[in-house]
Amino acid sequence: MTDTKTKIQEEIKIQGDLVRKLKSEKADKSKIDDEVSKLLALKAKLNENDADAGDAGQGGKFVLKTPKGSRDYGPLQMSLRNGVLDKIIKVFRRHGAETIDTPVFELKEVLTGKYGEDSKLIYDLKDQGGEALSLRYDLTVPFARYLAMNKITNIKRYQIAKVYRRDNPAMTRGRYREFFQCDFDIAGQYDPMLPEVECLRVVVEILNSLELGKFVVKVNHRALLDAIFDAAGVPANMFRAICSSVDKLDKSPWDDVKKEMVEEKGLSAETADLIGTYVRQSGGVELLERLAADEAISKTKTGPGGIESLKLFLHYAELTGVSSYVSVDMSLARGLDYYTGLIYEAVLVGAEVGSVAGGGRYDGLVGLFDPKGKQVPCVGVSIGVERIFSVVEARAANGPKVRTTHVQVYVASAQKNLQDERLKLCALLWDANINVEQSYKKSPKLLAQLQHCEEQGVPLVVILGEDEIKRGVVKVRDVSSRSEQEVARDSLVDHLKQRLAQMQTIDS
Amino acid sequence: MTDTKTKIQEEIKIQGDLVRKLKSEKADKSKIDDEVSKLLALKAKLNENDADAGDAGQGGKFVLKTPKGSRDYGPLQMSLRNGVLDKIIKVFRRHGAETIDTPVFELKEVLTGKYGEDSKLIYDLKDQGGEALSLRYDLTVPFARYLAMNKITNIKRYQIAKVYRRDNPAMTRGRYREFFQCDFDIAGQYDPMLPEVECLRVVVEILNSLELGKFVVKVNHRALLDAIFDAAGVPANMFRAICSSVDKLDKSPWDDVKKEMVEEKGLSAETADLIGTYVRQSGGVELLERLAADEAISKTKTGPGGIESLKLFLHYAELTGVSSYVSVDMSLARGLDYYTGLIYEAVLVGAEVGSVAGGGRYDGLVGLFDPKGKQVPCVGVSIGVERIFSVVEARAANGPKVRTTHVQVYVASAQKNLQDERLKLCALLWDANINVEQSYKKSPKLLAQLQHCEEQGVPLVVILGEDEIKRGVVKVRDVSSRSEQEVARDSLVDHLKQRLAQMQTIDS
Repeated sequence: MTDTKTKIQEEIKIQGDLVRKLKSEKADKSKIDDEVSKLLALKAKLNENDADAGDAGQGGKFVLKTPKGSRDYGPLQMSLRNGVLDKIIKVFRRHGAETIDTPVFELKEVLTGKYGEDSKLIYDLKDQGGEALSLRYDLTVPFARYLAMNKITNIKRYQIAKVYRRDNPAMTRGRYREFFQCDFDIAGQYDPMLPEVECLRVVVEILNSLELGKFVVKVNHRALLDAIFDAAGVPANMFRAICSSVDKLDKSPWDDVKKEMVEEKGLSAETADLIGTYVRQSGGVELLERLAADEAISKTKTGPGGIESLKLFLHYAELTGVSSYVSVDMSLARGLDYYTGLIYEAVLVGAEVGSVAGGGRYDGLVGLFDPKGKQVPCVGVSIGVERIFSVVEARAANGPKVRTTHVQVYVASAQKNLQDERLKLCALLWDANINVEQSYKKSPKLLAQLQHCEEQGVPLVVILGEDEIKRGVVKVRDVSSRSEQEVARDSLVDHLKQRLAQMQTIDS
Repeated sequence: MTDTKTKIQEEIKIQGDLVRKLKSEKADKSKIDDEVSKLLALKAKLNENDADAGDAGQGGKFVLKTPKGSRDYGPLQMSLRNGVLDKIIKVFRRHGAETIDTPVFELKEVLTGKYGEDSKLIYDLKDQGGEALSLRYDLTVPFARYLAMNKITNIKRYQIAKVYRRDNPAMTRGRYREFFQCDFDIAGQYDPMLPEVECLRVVVEILNSLELGKFVVKVNHRALLDAIFDAAGVPANMFRAICSSVDKLDKSPWDDVKKEMVEEKGLSAETADLIGTYVRQSGGVELLERLAADEAISKTKTGPGGIESLKLFLHYAELTGVSSYVSVDMSLARGLDYYTGLIYEAVLVGAEVGSVAGGGRYDGLVGLFDPKGKQVPCVGVSIGVERIFSVVEARAANGPKVRTTHVQVYVASAQKNLQDERLKLCALLWDANINVEQSYKKSPKLLAQLQHCEEQGVPLVVILGEDEIKRGVVKVRDVSSRSEQEVARDSLVDHLKQRLAQMQTIDS
């Protein structure tokens, strides 16, 4: 490390000399700019090297930043984020879900073998003596661990928490290494498709309440996908690998997917083409009827059952008023290995953000954690809140100002040295559970105080002046209309509460 | 690692043989039990070794647990936790605070050099190529990093999030390696003691709203502590070290603290005794007057200023109606190095849980992150929510049943095969924003459905029967009184909304 550092420092010196020389020669500006940017790149490299070596503590400077792929949420982003989450939680509660919380890290073994080749993206903690730990990669595996550990055989729960993946971040598109997941799952041995349709209904209610525009919930069934592979002549041990190729159809054209199947996964061109004719179909009941009549599919072990399940699902979707949102889509495959039944994915129509919800049934996961392999069937959906945040943030940037505090009344003074009086008045209003703020300056200017209120969207100001104090009154100002009226201190609390109720301000 | 494993496996084999031998000999039961428990200990050791080596993925069994010092929160704990946090957030909002969020990890350098000897408790992430990262140790340092990075010179913010310390957990007393912090801080260049008194007011409002019983907020000032050390003859470079000895006075008797000062830190017995006479005093304004009149203190550089500050603080506390909660306590020192002014700590009177809030002014921390060392003065308090959770959990164990869902209405069926009708009715009520649940079984027993409602505290049940369906009515049952009444389906939504409003059920 130190060698690398010395080397970079030398390069910086040489490059710095070059820049100084060019400048003293008054060389061509674009030439200088080129060399300056090379210099800055070297300095950035040095900083990175320092960061990697962890030697900034020894007096080195370091870049002031959050770790790669992570971000701070400022007050505005928090307002938007909490607004989204509040609406989502309302729907979860409407459907009777409880919530749980699990640690940010798990024993490494809990995650081992659950994510296939994505396991390389797991963040491990350093071995500092003790247990081998990793940061959670999703909320589903910790949920399964929680169920097995506590021998819980049925629960309907939601969990909203951050998860961690050492992926290449594409932060402008709402993809981070630290990001929120927001899951709703129903665990328990129940009758077919009843939990599934409630998950669908939850997704529909959430996407409608967030007013994100038109959306479609694509559904498919792993049993039907397997039947297609079977009918096309794919060997059973290749089903999941081919599934993962099919999964790419939402981003890649069929030709690319076919190429992968043939060249990388070794299918014959005929088999791939046969799969292609099946998986490029979507529709409703009529599609299912067509597939039921397909001789090759009907001869498979899993096809007829998968079709029946999807039919029942569509029937229940109809009864609960959400069938118009559903499209049976044979190309929907979902990447994760652990799904065993119905799978879903919701996408906004005509938007570029990708899926905004997804999930499915996973009946085998909990059993992996139970010492006796006891299964707890589960089905769930994950709401793509990060993508939703980025849609909402983009929208807010062009909309009216979003408030970041809940202040209802600002206590201002019109003259100097009224700090004591202001404090007494604040205490009176805090005691009455009114959200109140004042300046932390002893003698703030009235104009500055009023401006603060206009900028922050505080609805009412109580203004103290010496004359008013003598007469036992205060002025109450409406910030948006700028009208003022005198109110007796004795009736101030009632007066404010009435006006705030009329204004329907954000409550605490 | 493999050597250790082989060794333990051999020991297990020997011990296993011994147990089998004793059993076959029908030896004394207590003797067998002893040897069996030794065997189990060895097996646990093997499991731990597997966990350390991370080789459970290779087929080894592992203990199903959360990492040392961490825990899951089940639905009941979440209800209690969210109840506590909601009350706290209400107070933060009443005082106009915004909220922010920062990543769970920071560049290692951000934390380096901020926590003195406690730095050894920081969790580091494994070097997987890229930046050196650590889990946050508190919320204050990330907050300071956030301010410096975004060049924010004033903000009033709260943040509630988990932090991580590789401490020896004492989980029964509410001490964990992963635990919540709940911070309220005011950053900005303001007039003396105005932000400080608002922090005090926030603590008092929170502790009162949580109804935890009687409490005292101890306060002191680092300038006055330094003056005492100065007056007693402690060299300036020893102030912080002696401060940390004084900090132990809440847990250890004076003799132990004195011993540490003399034997470990090298003070003379006379100097230590002199410190002892000062720091064992507490009181109000009268104590400050006495100290102001103390010749040795008044001659120090920082003493008179510290006393004036505390007097102003008490004056403002009086004006805001919270002075009765305050005690000036010369033994209050606070462990952290970064405090520079007023410090606080709230304790429950007669309870064994330790402090439930603490904080102080730290004017130098943000400057450590600014490239030009630009300072942003800050003062804040941290609410000891983990201790509060453990108090509330203990209380709930002896109180009435706590609800973990928000279900208002359960849709039940009196006969078999009414699943379709139940689903239609659920959809009707979900559309009306009523929190509704039904069974996921096609033909559940009526008694089982009603029992579920009683156990879960669901207030109302809508019961469907074939006869009622024909007549266009349903039965509505009040779960607690068990009274039932017939309601026309057309007016069901209005009827339920009215009854729920009267019942003031937990809303979504």
